[in-house]
Amino acid sequence: MGPIAVSLGDPAGIGPELIAAAWARRAEEQLRPFFVFGGAGVLREAVAGLPVERIAAPGEAGAAFDRALPVLTDHDGPYRPGSPDEAGARLALASLEGAVALAVDGTASAVVTAPIAKGRLAEVGFVHPGQTEFVAAAAGGDPDDGVMMLAGPQLRTVPVTVHCALAEVPGRLSVDLIVARGRVVARALHGDFGIDRPRLAITGLNPHAGEDGRFGDEEARIIAPAIAALRSEGIEATGPHPADALFAPRARAGYDAALCMYHDQALIPLKTLDFDQGVNVTLGLPVVRTSPDHGTAFDIAGKGLADPGATIAAIRMAGEIAARRSAT
Amino acid sequence: MGPIAVSLGDPAGIGPELIAAAWARRAEEQLRPFFVFGGAGVLREAVAGLPVERIAAPGEAGAAFDRALPVLTDHDGPYRPGSPDEAGARLALASLEGAVALAVDGTASAVVTAPIAKGRLAEVGFVHPGQTEFVAAAAGGDPDDGVMMLAGPQLRTVPVTVHCALAEVPGRLSVDLIVARGRVVARALHGDFGIDRPRLAITGLNPHAGEDGRFGDEEARIIAPAIAALRSEGIEATGPHPADALFAPRARAGYDAALCMYHDQALIPLKTLDFDQGVNVTLGLPVVRTSPDHGTAFDIAGKGLADPGATIAAIRMAGEIAARRSAT
Repeated sequence: MGPIAVSLGDPAGIGPELIAAAWARRAEEQLRPFFVFGGAGVLREAVAGLPVERIAAPGEAGAAFDRALPVLTDHDGPYRPGSPDEAGARLALASLEGAVALAVDGTASAVVTAPIAKGRLAEVGFVHPGQTEFVAAAAGGDPDDGVMMLAGPQLRTVPVTVHCALAEVPGRLSVDLIVARGRVVARALHGDFGIDRPRLAITGLNPHAGEDGRFGDEEARIIAPAIAALRSEGIEATGPHPADALFAPRARAGYDAALCMYHDQALIPLKTLDFDQGVNVTLGLPVVRTSPDHGTAFDIAGKGLADPGATIAAIRMAGEIAARRSAT
Repeated sequence: MGPIAVSLGDPAGIGPELIAAAWARRAEEQLRPFFVFGGAGVLREAVAGLPVERIAAPGEAGAAFDRALPVLTDHDGPYRPGSPDEAGARLALASLEGAVALAVDGTASAVVTAPIAKGRLAEVGFVHPGQTEFVAAAAGGDPDDGVMMLAGPQLRTVPVTVHCALAEVPGRLSVDLIVARGRVVARALHGDFGIDRPRLAITGLNPHAGEDGRFGDEEARIIAPAIAALRSEGIEATGPHPADALFAPRARAGYDAALCMYHDQALIPLKTLDFDQGVNVTLGLPVVRTSPDHGTAFDIAGKGLADPGATIAAIRMAGEIAARRSAT
């Protein structure tokens, strides 16, 4: 199993210092070997005294990992925390493209992407709505093949619709979409997370899951039929559950992942419970990809304030999933 | 200051046992004297050995409270936990109407309503969408005057729209509605909760609060102007905040209440954090009214499994608000 490729993220954000913090805790956190694609100078400047070692090929990462943070390629630039610029966006894009390509061709066992500023990358030629869609496209699939799961120590959620206005959500929901998402999630919980018989809890769209049709009919018209279809395939799916009560401690014990109808329904409980530990995992692709579930945080970059918990969790989870896949 | 009036709730639900549990902990929880409107027999059967004392007038509750759970009036019925019926719905309705009337006329200092099954009460003549609207109407106001706040130990939230389909939410939002709700919440945080200079955090409607208009325009068109209007009145309102990050621990420290655009946006974080402690408080009315933020739970009624935390918190909060109001 190859090492994990990590992209640098925007060099003006908190990515570099968090990658360095994860490497510093590699032993206690039992992280599998990883290397960063580019940014050796950025990393050295971001953390004074950080041992950084240029490697010539991913295969050298394992041997170097104990003594230094391995970095592949000469892509680099100055370190100006909190001051994003075009050169930094180009470096972030080169690092993302390079790290993902190595995961796609199998040289790396997985890719962990540090945070970028989407708007800034778009200015230098990035045409994807986000890193998830980019990874899906790079892996040779449809951009919609990648399913975003948010995973924290206390909860896993998957939004069925993601980045669209709330007003568009009811029109985007369909039996087919929910069934497609549910299948990918059930398969990934089994194969990637090692859960023998995954339990999916599926939310309603409306308050109280519509209260028997008093507030909206999407539960009866779309969500319940989708649940029935998933169950007919042998997937243990329940619902539609009133979303407000589904994330309380006792309710959480009843499922392995919650399939939610829209972005905030999935993200609010995850970030409320596991803000500094949330991992964004892309399911349904041949390539293993995770990411810390936070942004570039330019306002605190370089100040030593950012919490490395999510980055560490993302690297650990990428390694675990890759190990499970390589064992089968 | 008069005693607190408590309605029985549906006698087949968990209301009676929770009221009894709250009375049993009156000393350690420092609860102000309360009485139940009706249901002496129900309460005696619900908790074996519970001392129940029939009082002839609310004014007798204070003296009786130390030695027994005071009950006013002969309204009563059999105790059949888990088996709701029409007689029980009539008892629940009589208790609700009686308890609220005593709070409205000032004999009681506040009313705490135990859970009812709305559909069942509708069958015996209850015409209101919920208890909140009933209390508002009984207090002589418009049903929309009562603003629902959910208050837990870690968070207070207020939904701007409440019981409607998610598809209707964008069309129901307006600058006027958000400003009206914000005013009531700011005034109540000051007068009822004793917060000197209340801070309101106001959510966006769309993912990432619309991300500068990429996903929906309600933030720019409705929410931001409402926040500006509230600020021009001297109310410390901020936003529109991306809702997913607003309920993380560090974010919560920055406000006293979050004004949310729809039901689940407000209820998901509250129930995720404070499921067994959530209190539903009706703001903006001359009468003080609170309620535990859970339902009748017919499935566990009479089994000793229900958590009295929210009922205790509701009774305590009703007393604190009533005391603050009577002191001014």
